[in-house]
Amino acid sequence: MKEKINTCYEKIKPYVHHTPIMESGHIENFLGSDLYFKCENFQRAGAFKMRGATNAILHLTTEQKEKGVVTHSSGNFAQALALAARTFGVKCYIVMPFNAPNVKKDAVVMYGGEIVECAPTMESRERVCNQVIDETGATFIHPSNEINVIIGNSTATKELLETEPDLDALIVPVGGGGLLAGTILAAQAFGKAGIEVYAGEPYEVDDAFRSLTSGKIECNLSVDTIADGLRTQLGDVNFPIIKEGVKAIIRVRENEIISAMRLIWQRMKIVVEPSSAVALAVLIKERPLFEGKKVGIILSGGNVDLDNLPF
Amino acid sequence: MKEKINTCYEKIKPYVHHTPIMESGHIENFLGSDLYFKCENFQRAGAFKMRGATNAILHLTTEQKEKGVVTHSSGNFAQALALAARTFGVKCYIVMPFNAPNVKKDAVVMYGGEIVECAPTMESRERVCNQVIDETGATFIHPSNEINVIIGNSTATKELLETEPDLDALIVPVGGGGLLAGTILAAQAFGKAGIEVYAGEPYEVDDAFRSLTSGKIECNLSVDTIADGLRTQLGDVNFPIIKEGVKAIIRVRENEIISAMRLIWQRMKIVVEPSSAVALAVLIKERPLFEGKKVGIILSGGNVDLDNLPF
Repeated sequence: MKEKINTCYEKIKPYVHHTPIMESGHIENFLGSDLYFKCENFQRAGAFKMRGATNAILHLTTEQKEKGVVTHSSGNFAQALALAARTFGVKCYIVMPFNAPNVKKDAVVMYGGEIVECAPTMESRERVCNQVIDETGATFIHPSNEINVIIGNSTATKELLETEPDLDALIVPVGGGGLLAGTILAAQAFGKAGIEVYAGEPYEVDDAFRSLTSGKIECNLSVDTIADGLRTQLGDVNFPIIKEGVKAIIRVRENEIISAMRLIWQRMKIVVEPSSAVALAVLIKERPLFEGKKVGIILSGGNVDLDNLPF
Repeated sequence: MKEKINTCYEKIKPYVHHTPIMESGHIENFLGSDLYFKCENFQRAGAFKMRGATNAILHLTTEQKEKGVVTHSSGNFAQALALAARTFGVKCYIVMPFNAPNVKKDAVVMYGGEIVECAPTMESRERVCNQVIDETGATFIHPSNEINVIIGNSTATKELLETEPDLDALIVPVGGGGLLAGTILAAQAFGKAGIEVYAGEPYEVDDAFRSLTSGKIECNLSVDTIADGLRTQLGDVNFPIIKEGVKAIIRVRENEIISAMRLIWQRMKIVVEPSSAVALAVLIKERPLFEGKKVGIILSGGNVDLDNLPF
């Protein structure tokens, strides 16, 4: 896997940002750990998703490239795939519920993606996706449950571990599982022996926590969380990697997410989305677990609607 | 002056951050200029003020250090002086109106400053300041009208020009004039021949614009601007430097400040305060003036009250 990640990294490098690692003396003193924040909010299209999307596009055959790609997402993967596709002159269809916020639709259009509307149900989404495939021959690229996407995502952690090779732990948010699985693969390939990968998840969408407990992929019963990037669920490609490699999935409350987000904005002066703040919320909640340790936190993205802030 | 700035820089370097320079392809394409944002919002205590405050403290005699320092400010200089003073074990008194927001008082206290309350008038502020000096023997340090503070501030531009030596223009906000004067000194010392320094100022507090027109220091008639760091006025130390060195002072409307601030947050994913956004607002307003040029923008600070955002 190490070689696969390295090869992927060399290929996607010209098309993604090598994002900075930030520190915060204030937050470190407050928590008693040595913290390294990998700022994927500064990534192209505003989130780590650009890495996986770019890798997926680079794996298409010439024929596939001619016919385009399609995905279903109303979030960061939609924007990332549209931008990555445009970079290589590939047509990109995004299946999105008709009631998705305009700010999300606009972002996709700005990056050259073509929106195909569906009803806000799983059934409609899949049906419309299949229609697009039937009509155009486009290749479906899953936002989180595809190995090329997962390997692309893993390069964020690879970059972090190249600068900070002796991290004791990594904390990432888990939604669809594509970032968590990628982080596990990179930690195993580039981390020191015994490095631990933790995931944070909102109580409101704790499918990953329950999946780990039951041993099979569980569904979310509600999507009532401010962490809009984490409303999706695990898939059959990433779940085995997660099951084998995650140390624990720790759940946090909505108010804990908001106050972690606030702390990042206030002290680090950067804009991160609620989903990103879930990782720091875990650290605040389980402080003793990380005290005295060197911990890497992936700040997954910075796409927020400034008109709908929780403060 | 070049040598003075260099000497200052060597002295303050261990106590301030070398802040990053950020770029934004989106904003560059939108404006048609080549832009370099010097991110003083990432500076210690959240603003460029840390540079001048540190230099001022470093210029104290041993006897002065024993007796402490005093300033009047309810903004970023208060926090910066408190933190700089604490770094060197110097007592710091901050004269602040009793009705200053708690968030500002808390920040000063957090950095170890002692708040001395006054009435929210110029007269009371000066009287209370003098009382503190009489009682404690503390040395008064002006937030913007003192040469050591100005030279300290100039190091932000020095750092920027070391990385980007061929900038055609610099844009900074002007309030008390300490940043603008420092920027002019550094541009003259380290910039290429013909480099131009522009300042941005809100219409609501356009004392600097009017001072430049009349040739003498004018007062603000209101302080009704969201750019709370720019409500102060020029002084006899910085005005001559500004008069001689500024290319133009360009005024912007409140809605232009807010939309520039929004653009920075949204596209660059960083938190800057309204005063910082004034510089970009100038560029947006006077786009043709800067088209095709290499322009440096000093993002002066990132201390905002997240509970009172304009969006």
